[in-house]
Amino acid sequence: MTRPVVLINLESPHSFWRLSAEHKRSLRASFPGVDFRTAAEEDVPYRMAEVSIYFGWRFEPSWLVGAPRLNWIASPAAGTDHLPVAEAHSAGVALTRSYGFHGRPMAEHAMGLVLGFSRGLFTSQRVQRNRTWWKDDLAEEFFDLAGSTMTIVGCGSIGGHLARTARAFGMDVIGVRRTPPVAARDGITWMHASAVHQAVAVGDVVVDLLPATRATNHLFDHALFAACKPGAIFLNLGRAATVDQSALLAALNTAHLRGAALDVSDPRPLPPRHPLRLHPRVVLTPKSSTLCHTYMDGAVAFFAENLRRFLAGQPLNGLAEVPDAHSPLAGG
Amino acid sequence: MTRPVVLINLESPHSFWRLSAEHKRSLRASFPGVDFRTAAEEDVPYRMAEVSIYFGWRFEPSWLVGAPRLNWIASPAAGTDHLPVAEAHSAGVALTRSYGFHGRPMAEHAMGLVLGFSRGLFTSQRVQRNRTWWKDDLAEEFFDLAGSTMTIVGCGSIGGHLARTARAFGMDVIGVRRTPPVAARDGITWMHASAVHQAVAVGDVVVDLLPATRATNHLFDHALFAACKPGAIFLNLGRAATVDQSALLAALNTAHLRGAALDVSDPRPLPPRHPLRLHPRVVLTPKSSTLCHTYMDGAVAFFAENLRRFLAGQPLNGLAEVPDAHSPLAGG
Repeated sequence: MTRPVVLINLESPHSFWRLSAEHKRSLRASFPGVDFRTAAEEDVPYRMAEVSIYFGWRFEPSWLVGAPRLNWIASPAAGTDHLPVAEAHSAGVALTRSYGFHGRPMAEHAMGLVLGFSRGLFTSQRVQRNRTWWKDDLAEEFFDLAGSTMTIVGCGSIGGHLARTARAFGMDVIGVRRTPPVAARDGITWMHASAVHQAVAVGDVVVDLLPATRATNHLFDHALFAACKPGAIFLNLGRAATVDQSALLAALNTAHLRGAALDVSDPRPLPPRHPLRLHPRVVLTPKSSTLCHTYMDGAVAFFAENLRRFLAGQPLNGLAEVPDAHSPLAGG
Repeated sequence: MTRPVVLINLESPHSFWRLSAEHKRSLRASFPGVDFRTAAEEDVPYRMAEVSIYFGWRFEPSWLVGAPRLNWIASPAAGTDHLPVAEAHSAGVALTRSYGFHGRPMAEHAMGLVLGFSRGLFTSQRVQRNRTWWKDDLAEEFFDLAGSTMTIVGCGSIGGHLARTARAFGMDVIGVRRTPPVAARDGITWMHASAVHQAVAVGDVVVDLLPATRATNHLFDHALFAACKPGAIFLNLGRAATVDQSALLAALNTAHLRGAALDVSDPRPLPPRHPLRLHPRVVLTPKSSTLCHTYMDGAVAFFAENLRRFLAGQPLNGLAEVPDAHSPLAGG
């Protein structure tokens, strides 16, 4: 076996999304038999000929053509819908996502959004310049997290982290996935994907962490929003394609939903006058739920474990499924 | 001993601040030897002659005059600065505050405010109508709660609850009080009130839970804000009098403080054009941090335990200290 070449393309204007010098040193020290090279995005196509492993945020399908030795594309991201999963599969190239370290920032983000609604903080920020006193409004609109229920749709490892955080506030948590664990885990009450309408009916907070697949496309439609508990909060920290935005808007306008927070939207960004941008009970964040100063530490540790597996001939963690074969409600 | 008369004045437009029929039934069942009476606020002065115990939100000093049998004023509130503590003391009447059940809603409120800043949620809500995309701004301004430090000034039972919640997010917590516990508790690193300048210097988040006393008046002044870590968030969920608002405003305007959230202010409410109302990095809430649908359950349970103590001749919990004798940094 020739010395495997890893090409790393992990540039970003933000330090926490870049590979640091220390990360490179650590990888080289851990894998002395591997040739680690780095490339800027525009140089990647010209550097692929000798590469057996690629580690980067993006991968263009055309890059496969000039990469006869490529065995594996590793992404530091949780999702793979922006990557050429089918093309890589056809070319016999493994493609892996990363997991295990998105949960902490996303749990912080989700709990902040939930508390922003439950404690009337978004209302307060909106009216503090125009209203003298609004305590009576908040007394009508607030709710206690303790004793309320969070339903997590697409409850994978990120959902597990969020569940533990929600339970620290005394919330009950229902996790929905296509393969619910047999044993209890993280204090979650598990429900099968086929019971998602029942699951959202008891959630004071409904969190969408679904991946984008053919089966999850517009899963949150008029019927599923209608099945939600009246007055529920809806958060989408997953993928925009899982939500029918006109159905969401209708559910907000009838006040069936108390509020919504969207970290993803279609299109992204929303047009300037889009009604979801202007809605007083909608909070938009710019796909910022995974912002985390230790992101790359987690991504490099995940990659290093997978590289160890690769060199040992063991199965890789986080192998992407080919989209058409993907069942619904996997979760990130 | 004649049958003790308890006069209850617990009216509110909001059900969770009222004594329910169930609360009354429960008290009467638990204390068959006690005569429980209820009165609307305007009738209280005419009902005090036979009363030995008063349980209510407010108490006018003048009510002491017509109350020769009064032994004890019980308040369901955490603070006593709105009550005639000195006058009651002079009249030989005990006055108690309540505690042990404010921590949960206040921890939810405080964590929501912290996360609103740390995850850029307040920024997002402010700009979502006017800006197309602001992820780069958030990437500069966000911080991870995990590994950051919360300094709680006036860390009593409410602070203990907040500390446990903050620790569920992986925060380190420093508790400042005049009588730090000898043993570790709630995972808090304790510091004495005399070291408050050192304590705030390491807090990414500084939470003011101080009671209003002569010694805490304007404790947060120019010098104490200057001692805060650059970029810190400041929350006041305690009493407005503990903060010099012009010093706070100056610390915000120089960006020494990243942001502030105030649940209390002087005056309350702030005038319409007050700079703290208009400041883009200030969030005001209308003394809503203790809003809690189970508030009165907690207050009645606290009162019932104290009533048991009263009838058994044991010392009452939550006895208010006479203001002039009050040392700083007690905490709620």
